[in-house]
Amino acid sequence: MFGPKSHLTARKGHLFLEDVDLIGLAEKFGTPLYATSEARLRANISAYHGAFPDADKYFAVKANGNLTVLRIAAQEGMGADVFSLGELYVARLAGVPKERILYNGNSKSEADHRMALQAGVRMSVDSREELEYLSKTARDLGREAEILFRVNPDVSPKTHPKIATGLRTSKFGIPAEQVAGTYQRAVGLAGIKPLGLHCHIGSQILDVSPFVEAMKKMMDIAGAVVAAGCEIGIIDIGGGLGIQYNPDAPAPTPADLAAGVLPVFKERCYELGIAPKLILEPGRSIVADTTVMLTRVNVVKRAHVNFAACDAGFNVLARPMLYDSYHHVLVANRAGSPAEETYTVVGPICETGDVLAKERLLPKLERGDVLAFLDAGAYGFSMASQYNGQPRPAEVLVFGGEAELTRRAEDPSALLAGQRIPARLI
Amino acid sequence: MFGPKSHLTARKGHLFLEDVDLIGLAEKFGTPLYATSEARLRANISAYHGAFPDADKYFAVKANGNLTVLRIAAQEGMGADVFSLGELYVARLAGVPKERILYNGNSKSEADHRMALQAGVRMSVDSREELEYLSKTARDLGREAEILFRVNPDVSPKTHPKIATGLRTSKFGIPAEQVAGTYQRAVGLAGIKPLGLHCHIGSQILDVSPFVEAMKKMMDIAGAVVAAGCEIGIIDIGGGLGIQYNPDAPAPTPADLAAGVLPVFKERCYELGIAPKLILEPGRSIVADTTVMLTRVNVVKRAHVNFAACDAGFNVLARPMLYDSYHHVLVANRAGSPAEETYTVVGPICETGDVLAKERLLPKLERGDVLAFLDAGAYGFSMASQYNGQPRPAEVLVFGGEAELTRRAEDPSALLAGQRIPARLI
Repeated sequence: MFGPKSHLTARKGHLFLEDVDLIGLAEKFGTPLYATSEARLRANISAYHGAFPDADKYFAVKANGNLTVLRIAAQEGMGADVFSLGELYVARLAGVPKERILYNGNSKSEADHRMALQAGVRMSVDSREELEYLSKTARDLGREAEILFRVNPDVSPKTHPKIATGLRTSKFGIPAEQVAGTYQRAVGLAGIKPLGLHCHIGSQILDVSPFVEAMKKMMDIAGAVVAAGCEIGIIDIGGGLGIQYNPDAPAPTPADLAAGVLPVFKERCYELGIAPKLILEPGRSIVADTTVMLTRVNVVKRAHVNFAACDAGFNVLARPMLYDSYHHVLVANRAGSPAEETYTVVGPICETGDVLAKERLLPKLERGDVLAFLDAGAYGFSMASQYNGQPRPAEVLVFGGEAELTRRAEDPSALLAGQRIPARLI
Repeated sequence: MFGPKSHLTARKGHLFLEDVDLIGLAEKFGTPLYATSEARLRANISAYHGAFPDADKYFAVKANGNLTVLRIAAQEGMGADVFSLGELYVARLAGVPKERILYNGNSKSEADHRMALQAGVRMSVDSREELEYLSKTARDLGREAEILFRVNPDVSPKTHPKIATGLRTSKFGIPAEQVAGTYQRAVGLAGIKPLGLHCHIGSQILDVSPFVEAMKKMMDIAGAVVAAGCEIGIIDIGGGLGIQYNPDAPAPTPADLAAGVLPVFKERCYELGIAPKLILEPGRSIVADTTVMLTRVNVVKRAHVNFAACDAGFNVLARPMLYDSYHHVLVANRAGSPAEETYTVVGPICETGDVLAKERLLPKLERGDVLAFLDAGAYGFSMASQYNGQPRPAEVLVFGGEAELTRRAEDPSALLAGQRIPARLI
């Protein structure tokens, strides 16, 4: 068994998630299927609370928008980092208190601002231009917008370029040198109440040092804001802590992150004479390793290489195709069997890029075998599509020896939802 | 105005699709929005009929699964290339006759085979292994499967590697040297009736020569099949003809394609003494240029570059992020205005890769402007997702001066479809 995943075990040749046989689960609910361990989810949140006892933790809803996952996160005291009205809607229905929601976004419309103001949640303002738009809308509504400023800290997080969000060249945030002036302007602006600073340097970061660098830059900027005579009540350093997808690429823990950033935060706050609330926005490191994606092998094809063609492709799990991501694969009905052959695992999508795993040494495969893609809880279902006429799969929550459906699988009728043919063409 | 797009015109500063003002359309139906010209769709199909009067044309449903688009294609005499039961379902409901449907796929389950046999459609068999699986299922059902063999012709189409499907290393098809033997085996196999050969070398191909090369290889393989004593009734050379997305990258027409491949097809059929039906599977070249995607500018942000942040991102139009694709952009409410400034057009998604167009020289933009992404009819809506809590947009069909909704926009409630919270967590 790979890695420190106590919630995944091999028992009599089958892979179990907590005390649930994943082969029984695949038979009962069909494949493809996402299965999430509730115990692991709660344990991951506890690890953050332990490492950062004084900080607020906002779950990054984009990683996993499952209502039940969000409900559990809310029960465990997490807030929510939302990036759209849709995510705000789901987070509120899941029970996240509005006081612990931050509405982020680089491209909010007037309607977005209006609804966020009406919903009474804080916003992260991405640009000087947005500040002016928001001020006007807040005044129109007779409301006051509590805001953070999204800072572009110009930190290189050493991750995939598509998910490095804190580079100077990225679309996100206010250039560092403009922040203090913008903050000062906001203090006097009608309808606006600036509370603090926010950044996010990227995703799947496997080294603590970029977070430390970002914290230093944030505190430099906080110093400039304080020097300009403004108050800072919140420092939000975003998310981005990576997880160990690959046996060869270990990830820091929340405790490692805390050991890196908290001394800087505390020392600099002391120097500046401020006592802001610290906020973190973890997503992947909370939810990725809670979940396996199960997919059944339809064809074992021996061509120039061995292909295992499954019923899940990039429609179900987009990360390998989008970011060349590695997900560890286990054969759920051959757990503990020796690895004998090399397979490239592909999906049912009509594109050459539809490869889920390249050249993996696995037990000898047959049609009907069930593969478990580990660490599929973040950016898994949330990026799923109906491309190539594929209905989206079900999600289940596993708790001890029980499993409950949390999202029904779609069937082909879902492809017709909302469609109509003009009368003259019927 | 870019390119030979007679269905798009500038009138009094607004962009029109046929005789419909796209600004009025954006106001009526909201943005993001996909708008399709019926006249252009019918004209594109006619061009194929004119170029290949004796061939069948099967529309590649993966390019665009809109029921109304498929209904029009069926009215115009097209069949359907489907790659899943979902696409089969939609094509049949749209009115495509089962005799003109080919069910392709590299990863069909027993249930897929069973349903395709019950639906009475032909299948393309991707591997020797699938042939044996299908034979057994057909015998179990007491049916006979009419099949083509998907050939891997080992042709390099000079396109993006993720959509080059005819390379030796791709997951698709039976290696060329194995086809004749597999065909011969199929002739004697219970439940199987082999009808011919099928290939598909890739997508967005801007040069006719790879198609000519593929046709030659297909006819070589047909020769080997005939020499083995088998009959060939169908040669299906798939789709893949590119379109002119970029002013600098002109595309061949269906007539150019016909001028390249038909002489080879006819000469080699004559030499072999066979008279198979030719089938083509165009998708993009039928539907891409029929459609614009409209998106509204939420923020014009001046940072290290000028960003135009819109309400559509890779959730709506995935191609730029997936394949670094170019879509030409026009400002629908400033049609005919001089280009003055360079903008990078980004979406509302929380990833740095959410860039729809890089450094485009456009008229000076303001919040509220509407951008038209041209040639968005293929792999546009069909690849859309709800990522980042974004409901999917509406689609409309334009016909003369009229516009009718063919797919309603989703709202945030769509994010909750099929979801349930276990009772103990309510």
